[in-house]
Amino acid sequence: MASSAEGTKLWGGRFVGDTDPIMEKFNASITYDRRLWAADVRGSQAYAKALQTAGLVTGDEMKRLLGGLDTVYEEWSSGHFQIKAGDEDVHTANERRLKELIGEVAGKLHTGRSRNDQVVTDMRLWLRDAINTLKGNSLQLISTMVDRAAAEIDILFPGYTHMQRAQPIRWSHWILSHAVALRRDVEKLDETLRRVNVLPLGSGAIAGNPLAIDRELLRKELDFDTISINSMDATGQRDFVVEFLFWASMCLTHLSKMAEDLILYSTKEFSFIQLSDAYSTGSSLMPQKKNADSLELIRSKAGRVFGRCAGFLMILKGLPSTYNKDLQEDKEAMFDTYDTVDAVLQVATGVVSTLQVNRIAMEAALSPDMLATDLAYYLVRKGMPFREAHSCSGKVVFLAEYTCSHTHIQKTCPNADAFSVCVHKIFAFSVEQYSAPGGTARSSINAQIENMRAWLKTHKQ
Amino acid sequence: MASSAEGTKLWGGRFVGDTDPIMEKFNASITYDRRLWAADVRGSQAYAKALQTAGLVTGDEMKRLLGGLDTVYEEWSSGHFQIKAGDEDVHTANERRLKELIGEVAGKLHTGRSRNDQVVTDMRLWLRDAINTLKGNSLQLISTMVDRAAAEIDILFPGYTHMQRAQPIRWSHWILSHAVALRRDVEKLDETLRRVNVLPLGSGAIAGNPLAIDRELLRKELDFDTISINSMDATGQRDFVVEFLFWASMCLTHLSKMAEDLILYSTKEFSFIQLSDAYSTGSSLMPQKKNADSLELIRSKAGRVFGRCAGFLMILKGLPSTYNKDLQEDKEAMFDTYDTVDAVLQVATGVVSTLQVNRIAMEAALSPDMLATDLAYYLVRKGMPFREAHSCSGKVVFLAEYTCSHTHIQKTCPNADAFSVCVHKIFAFSVEQYSAPGGTARSSINAQIENMRAWLKTHKQ
Amino acid sequence: MASSAEGTKLWGGRFVGDTDPIMEKFNASITYDRRLWAADVRGSQAYAKALQTAGLVTGDEMKRLLGGLDTVYEEWSSGHFQIKAGDEDVHTANERRLKELIGEVAGKLHTGRSRNDQVVTDMRLWLRDAINTLKGNSLQLISTMVDRAAAEIDILFPGYTHMQRAQPIRWSHWILSHAVALRRDVEKLDETLRRVNVLPLGSGAIAGNPLAIDRELLRKELDFDTISINSMDATGQRDFVVEFLFWASMCLTHLSKMAEDLILYSTKEFSFIQLSDAYSTGSSLMPQKKNADSLELIRSKAGRVFGRCAGFLMILKGLPSTYNKDLQEDKEAMFDTYDTVDAVLQVATGVVSTLQVNRIAMEAALSPDMLATDLAYYLVRKGMPFREAHSCSGKVVFLAEYTCSHTHIQKTCPNADAFSVCVHKIFAFSVEQYSAPGGTARSSINAQIENMRAWLKTHKQ
Amino acid sequence: MASSAEGTKLWGGRFVGDTDPIMEKFNASITYDRRLWAADVRGSQAYAKALQTAGLVTGDEMKRLLGGLDTVYEEWSSGHFQIKAGDEDVHTANERRLKELIGEVAGKLHTGRSRNDQVVTDMRLWLRDAINTLKGNSLQLISTMVDRAAAEIDILFPGYTHMQRAQPIRWSHWILSHAVALRRDVEKLDETLRRVNVLPLGSGAIAGNPLAIDRELLRKELDFDTISINSMDATGQRDFVVEFLFWASMCLTHLSKMAEDLILYSTKEFSFIQLSDAYSTGSSLMPQKKNADSLELIRSKAGRVFGRCAGFLMILKGLPSTYNKDLQEDKEAMFDTYDTVDAVLQVATGVVSTLQVNRIAMEAALSPDMLATDLAYYLVRKGMPFREAHSCSGKVVFLAEYTCSHTHIQKTCPNADAFSVCVHKIFAFSVEQYSAPGGTARSSINAQIENMRAWLKTHKQ
Repeated sequence: MASSAEGTKLWGGRFVGDTDPIMEKFNASITYDRRLWAADVRGSQAYAKALQTAGLVTGDEMKRLLGGLDTVYEEWSSGHFQIKAGDEDVHTANERRLKELIGEVAGKLHTGRSRNDQVVTDMRLWLRDAINTLKGNSLQLISTMVDRAAAEIDILFPGYTHMQRAQPIRWSHWILSHAVALRRDVEKLDETLRRVNVLPLGSGAIAGNPLAIDRELLRKELDFDTISINSMDATGQRDFVVEFLFWASMCLTHLSKMAEDLILYSTKEFSFIQLSDAYSTGSSLMPQKKNADSLELIRSKAGRVFGRCAGFLMILKGLPSTYNKDLQEDKEAMFDTYDTVDAVLQVATGVVSTLQVNRIAMEAALSPDMLATDLAYYLVRKGMPFREAHSCSGKVVFLAEYTCSHTHIQKTCPNADAFSVCVHKIFAFSVEQYSAPGGTARSSINAQIENMRAWLKTHKQ
Repeated sequence: MASSAEGTKLWGGRFVGDTDPIMEKFNASITYDRRLWAADVRGSQAYAKALQTAGLVTGDEMKRLLGGLDTVYEEWSSGHFQIKAGDEDVHTANERRLKELIGEVAGKLHTGRSRNDQVVTDMRLWLRDAINTLKGNSLQLISTMVDRAAAEIDILFPGYTHMQRAQPIRWSHWILSHAVALRRDVEKLDETLRRVNVLPLGSGAIAGNPLAIDRELLRKELDFDTISINSMDATGQRDFVVEFLFWASMCLTHLSKMAEDLILYSTKEFSFIQLSDAYSTGSSLMPQKKNADSLELIRSKAGRVFGRCAGFLMILKGLPSTYNKDLQEDKEAMFDTYDTVDAVLQVATGVVSTLQVNRIAMEAALSPDMLATDLAYYLVRKGMPFREAHSCSGKVVFLAEYTCSHTHIQKTCPNADAFSVCVHKIFAFSVEQYSAPGGTARSSINAQIENMRAWLKTHKQ
Repeated sequence: MASSAEGTKLWGGRFVGDTDPIMEKFNASITYDRRLWAADVRGSQAYAKALQTAGLVTGDEMKRLLGGLDTVYEEWSSGHFQIKAGDEDVHTANERRLKELIGEVAGKLHTGRSRNDQVVTDMRLWLRDAINTLKGNSLQLISTMVDRAAAEIDILFPGYTHMQRAQPIRWSHWILSHAVALRRDVEKLDETLRRVNVLPLGSGAIAGNPLAIDRELLRKELDFDTISINSMDATGQRDFVVEFLFWASMCLTHLSKMAEDLILYSTKEFSFIQLSDAYSTGSSLMPQKKNADSLELIRSKAGRVFGRCAGFLMILKGLPSTYNKDLQEDKEAMFDTYDTVDAVLQVATGVVSTLQVNRIAMEAALSPDMLATDLAYYLVRKGMPFREAHSCSGKVVFLAEYTCSHTHIQKTCPNADAFSVCVHKIFAFSVEQYSAPGGTARSSINAQIENMRAWLKTHKQ
Repeated sequence: MASSAEGTKLWGGRFVGDTDPIMEKFNASITYDRRLWAADVRGSQAYAKALQTAGLVTGDEMKRLLGGLDTVYEEWSSGHFQIKAGDEDVHTANERRLKELIGEVAGKLHTGRSRNDQVVTDMRLWLRDAINTLKGNSLQLISTMVDRAAAEIDILFPGYTHMQRAQPIRWSHWILSHAVALRRDVEKLDETLRRVNVLPLGSGAIAGNPLAIDRELLRKELDFDTISINSMDATGQRDFVVEFLFWASMCLTHLSKMAEDLILYSTKEFSFIQLSDAYSTGSSLMPQKKNADSLELIRSKAGRVFGRCAGFLMILKGLPSTYNKDLQEDKEAMFDTYDTVDAVLQVATGVVSTLQVNRIAMEAALSPDMLATDLAYYLVRKGMPFREAHSCSGKVVFLAEYTCSHTHIQKTCPNADAFSVCVHKIFAFSVEQYSAPGGTARSSINAQIENMRAWLKTHKQ
């Protein structure tokens, strides 16, 4: 067995001694998992208390452990913590530093604990806080949108399907359509949080904890909702990470949809909105350009975050159960996704809160052909079956592109006698017809706003 | 406008007349959306009732609509429904047939309704049933696993991390580790179901319903939990499909993990289990082979289903809001995913229910080096700090590969005086030490089984 | 071992006898792999000849094998081939039928051949033809685009970046920008084809062929370029499928980009193009609508196909080497991707070949602010450093939104003395400045067209 | 327009002034695109020369530009370059610094150049070098594998399909099966390199270069193979990045397959190989563990890299043509993928080069049932049709599990009279039968080694 330990170069590859520096770098996670420092200290302090309760450390030893960990915490939070060679991850670094501070008793802290339950406890503590931050950001964005919808309820513009003008709607209706999607995201995030907020500590490496540690005590100390049911599952699963990554993918897909709409509306051709300068940039070559960079970046981030989700799920697929080193990919995916969603939500709030609406252009885009559906409904109210009214109305619109004469219309559509009623009257009241719940009538929009405000109140943090 | 209507071949491409048969096939969805027939009839019947309540059809017309739709339903369910040329989707087919059956009044059924709210209502009705079926299948699988865990609680075998033998565990512990993952899946499926079970009907194409349709009546008729808040969102979002596709991806990733374990355990080298012949196949070339095809197929399906999820989310990313034809990809993804998960759950139940455990091989695999952790804990209980005990125990194991003499051990590890206590005694009780909740001790496993059984009881359908 | 063979229900799951019908359906591939029938017959005929050369069948036996296989081929091609219960895949079906037709000698055909090398040979034969079809479709689309670019070289319209008007360009420049992307796709497809066109037959299940079969003879018979190097790799890899799936993902991403542009250009707001009726559809609710369904479908298919690619690659990731049943997912992915790309290319050709350009709207969109870059270059030519010219030109454009007076401009930009040269003159010649290779000047566009035509000539099939 | 410029908080969102620091951070790319510094300087120097040739700067101005850029280069390479506030990307930073160094003339460098063609030129220069490094790493890995295959040709062990023992093969056969997959990767990388090595500079923002810049001169200066055909495509496409990301996904999928095999082989149950200590790690809890961390990390990276590919392709899907800010995601994906593949290839070389083979365990795993195929071939050579021989041989193996008596075999398989020939004789020569090209016979393996060595020679860098 000697030769392998000596790392002789056997087969012509690059030299490898006892250690391979590339492998060490490949293996180390301290460059990113240091973000877990606070969670790691907190988890260790709770564990020190449980060790004392279980009689595995004395009261005095516990105090020394807690005090030493307090010092570690302060060093991190003040920026003075020194990472040393050999600190391959934040857990090793903290343990090494603790030993420097308080001596051999530090070695008792890991009794009955494994990296496997320690790491996943740290991640859950960290992600719990991260989710609460994202929830707050989401609620602020939704709240901004609802306020704007309330303030601009009078503005009409075309609703589009297939990117073609479809029916006149209120601008507020459009805003709210995106706000309700984000509301679903917040509701899902609450569900995810419940699954994140489960204590794995006390699961050991795989088989559980053999030292009668009080997991209920740990749960209370660390403020988890429940404790994990099965130690193999607790240490080997990363469902809570995948679920968060996918939540982010869907949330950012919603914002990419909103961004796509707004990019379209900010083209010269639509000219419905204008972004604040803070959210636009110019061109290095074309002096006249004002680009909606903020929105394009928002649109792109759904892809970035989904890539993290897809990559990590691919890693999990086909893995055997329990901890495998492959899981180390969990942390960068989680951190990057959090940072991305955090920024997107704040930038989106800034964009929505400062963009200016060009009401004149919006209402000028309400072309007469968009009344075709109203015309059909008008005929329905006069007793014509809908399918016939639809066909008749379609012919009118077609003809209207060539002529405005009533005669033409009468020829095409003999049942439309009552067409002498001014088309404009129908137009003015068009949106007000859509008064069923969810529709674009003022009363319906107001109901949606009230609904959203009531919901926001229950989610105030 | 004439020339385009005539479809002249302008630029040297293949000939295109008024219609292009390839485009028609490309556009049509009847080959797969016919599966929505029952939901479509049911949705239309509810809508007919709402039209009558709103005074848009008479009581007599409503009866004719309902009766005609009953006939359409019977034709489908008896396999006699004839799809005709021009029936591009199931909604067109049903509407066409209804008109053949009851005449012009059929044209009133679509009043105030759009394909946009109709299609998504049908999909939600269909998926609601599908989810209930999958939930039932999942519960049956979990139940089978829990029963098996209860029956085979005495069997010990190695628990693995990094695919290396780690600690002795109970076979039941392994079974339950997979069962708790599936339990989370069922809990998530319930949450998804709540978001599926929201009525979009009455949202029209985009702006809402202009005919004072009673959406609360529709909700009751179709047994939805709530009605959608905003009509643009209701008709343009497919979040409920994406969420289902992702649910399936995670559920099948759990089963791929279990399959990977079982494939490993069924190799000649492990020889822990043997599949029933019903779930194995032979080789066309190698007569001695018995392959775990069922498990390999299960393992693969996570990829298939995730591909559906990734593909559909990519379609949504960057789309503008409201209905765009791109959304037509929703249905094949939904159907194929349902079919796949449905089969996987049933096959997995069959596999788990019939596989045979080779207890002798399992217990023979419990090699002495797996007691190293226990030895360390033993030393901890004697007062040695864990880190020192860990190091000492590691040295013992290393030496034990060369020699079994006590002298050697004492030399290496001078603090280990109490080593004279028979190692075997520790081994015999090894698993029983892990008695903290979630661990592998008998009491802990029994608690897990009770926990799961109580949970199963609350989810009986 | 008896009980497992008898399939007793052991653990409370659903009943399973000797066979489980759900497992059998789950396992079978005949519903889709029947598309390989011609390739399978052809491969078997080549193998029969090689068996005769190797002395493993007599000349007479070979003739009977070839004749029987001819009959099988005819039955399939005339639609008379009967699939029977037990025909789990096309290979089994053909072998079963051959035995019915020619008796026991059929059993010799599989000598030294395994399903593993047989299946992958069939797939390569099939995909080779499929790729040639797709290449032909691609070339026709490119050719149509180049012809259109040549015919409409005089039409100018805005080039966009960030969806904002950037610089005036020729419409042909836009067409060619998409054509060159497709040209890269064809070039990549040729490379993929070279890797597809490698013979695996003669690799057996894993270890190779033990009967001195002449693989070079097989290669010639089946018209492959080369033979596979290593039998384990040959039977266990599906790189050629993944590569094809990814090729399709990139090709359809190109077409989704083109579709996105055209959908935008066909909005009322842009009004640059109008699709032929053959590629548009109306709305069930809104009679005035004309939706670009063909383009939306094209845009969506990149997602569908990428989902297939992602799903299949996820299946491969982490698999051990050689054949595992997981690979059975290869065929549906391959067939569906082929069908999708085949349809998309043809529909895209139809769309491009029949759409009508609205030259008036295009040129009306060339707003004066788009000359800002030209103005900057004008100043550069007068000796101003570019960065200063850029800044100056930007200010002019900003002011031009409020005033057209020359005085203003002179105040803002004192170096711009020569501004008296008519701005219109610059505008008229704007596009002609971009004469470097690849630019939008007429000469440069003509060079691109010639380049593409020369390339097309070398790829004529 | 004033209010938007002032950035008043309009709608209750967080305060936004003229600038939003979160947006600025969101928008900036200097933290990662600084890696392009050398490419950026080099591209600018070539452009300065082309400006002089075009008469846009004087010879003296060119010298000042080149000298200033040399200084910028030196500052970067010596680690003294100072990034300042406002340096949002490396291009801005370099341009700002150049102006500090040489004054106003620096403003001429950007004449006719746009960020759009500048950035993509830098990326192609960078990626070209990166690909060459990866190619070298790949060749070293392949070369190590081929050497090892040559040296250990005598070692036999079981070849597996479906993770079940299938046929005896040479260990070298297994090594070569992975080497040929990597060879395909190198060949594909060469093809990708050809598409990377195309000059986009001189394409401006979209319309081309208006100043008669000599693109052929630029090409030569920067050592590109060809120049891009169409300026819109050149500036707006990132196919070369996607193609690289996908190449990496496939290459790492190959290495994940090899890693999966080796992880399996390094389990206690298989015990075929032992990793060098440099590539293994221990457990914090279980002293006896030796985990194959290096291989697990390698296995995981295919997921990471594929996530980058999927994410970026999702960003591209549905984007309109030309440059959109969404493309900014290209760089982090490219850099991270390069770093990952670079490390994986080197670690894999270290692992393969230092692992130790346990020949005794390998050969002990060659159980008699693996001779079943040979037995069938033996019977075929005696004239029995293969299908009958296969069935007969299968029965023998089945019986052999219970009894070794010849009588039993004769009863089961009456045609097998010649069975008295010692089974062992067949076994000894088993692998030598597979002498067709690609097979596991010594001659065939030697031919593969020679083939690979000849190929390696042609790829020496």
